[in-house]
Amino acid sequence: MLQTQNRSQELDGIIGRRILYVYDNGWKYEMYVKNADTVDYRIHSGMVGGRWVKDQKVFLVRIAKDTYKISWDEPTGTAVSLSYNLDEMKIHGVIFFPRWVADEPMETVCFQNDHLDRMLAHRDAGPTYPRLVVDEFASIVLIQDVGVDREDVIACSPGQLPADFLAGEPCQYRQSTVALGN
Amino acid sequence: MLQTQNRSQELDGIIGRRILYVYDNGWKYEMYVKNADTVDYRIHSGMVGGRWVKDQKVFLVRIAKDTYKISWDEPTGTAVSLSYNLDEMKIHGVIFFPRWVADEPMETVCFQNDHLDRMLAHRDAGPTYPRLVVDEFASIVLIQDVGVDREDVIACSPGQLPADFLAGEPCQYRQSTVALGN
Repeated sequence: MLQTQNRSQELDGIIGRRILYVYDNGWKYEMYVKNADTVDYRIHSGMVGGRWVKDQKVFLVRIAKDTYKISWDEPTGTAVSLSYNLDEMKIHGVIFFPRWVADEPMETVCFQNDHLDRMLAHRDAGPTYPRLVVDEFASIVLIQDVGVDREDVIACSPGQLPADFLAGEPCQYRQSTVALGN
Repeated sequence: MLQTQNRSQELDGIIGRRILYVYDNGWKYEMYVKNADTVDYRIHSGMVGGRWVKDQKVFLVRIAKDTYKISWDEPTGTAVSLSYNLDEMKIHGVIFFPRWVADEPMETVCFQNDHLDRMLAHRDAGPTYPRLVVDEFASIVLIQDVGVDREDVIACSPGQLPADFLAGEPCQYRQSTVALGN
């Protein structure tokens, strides 16, 4: 019980946050840390822009002051490990894409929760190797404390977002002027 | 050129270091950060204890104060992302093992450089899924600044090490009393 409390406290700085960020290669991502082992995410642009996912189980840990690591193993076969430095507003991502995703990225562009069997079938059909490894820094555009376990934070595809997406939302930080437009 | 200088300076705190650490599950590892994109490593105990590798190409970045991330894609198909917090003497590793390594770990226990074709053949033969994902913290036993590009830092299997391995070596830090014995 004590251990659970300590772990929860250690992760207080990231749980319940919506984080928008832009990789140095231009890819725009949105992550919602729903709780200590679950994220929802939406990809606004990039190789798999348009893809969105709810309830991905993740490994979330604190690795340094204001710095967290989120890792997961996707139904697509993609392996992901992201480091979020919320003090420096900087992220580093390493993403190991199986060859089939690199060859046919549009196959993964969907609301994945409705297509889990198709993703697993693609994963198992491959090809898996050689993988495409993406190693990129990203700048955080904004962080919002929206609270835990909400289903309305990421609830539609990027293309379905209203023009005034995020207008009037309170931001915990807003240090960057990078545009998020689709 | 300036960018290269800045990046090198940013990584000064880890390049040229030998780092010994013990995962919470008991696995003992030794990492030598040979230069900005190369590591040698040796596994003293654990699922693939006895395995050792030279000249693994990696992605090495600074992610926070005194904290670095090293990621790589192995010939075995294993994907690795490690976070080294050298101030708190703490590491977090996420290792995505393909199913064949989880099923037959001893097949990877060798001096990998002499068996690259065999590793690639195993990788391609699979099975790859479901992967075994290891998500573990480790405690750093010691860090030594041994300098860059040395071939004698990791030059034999763990089993071939002399009994007085590391005796008399200067340590930059030695905060832990965790035993490293084989």
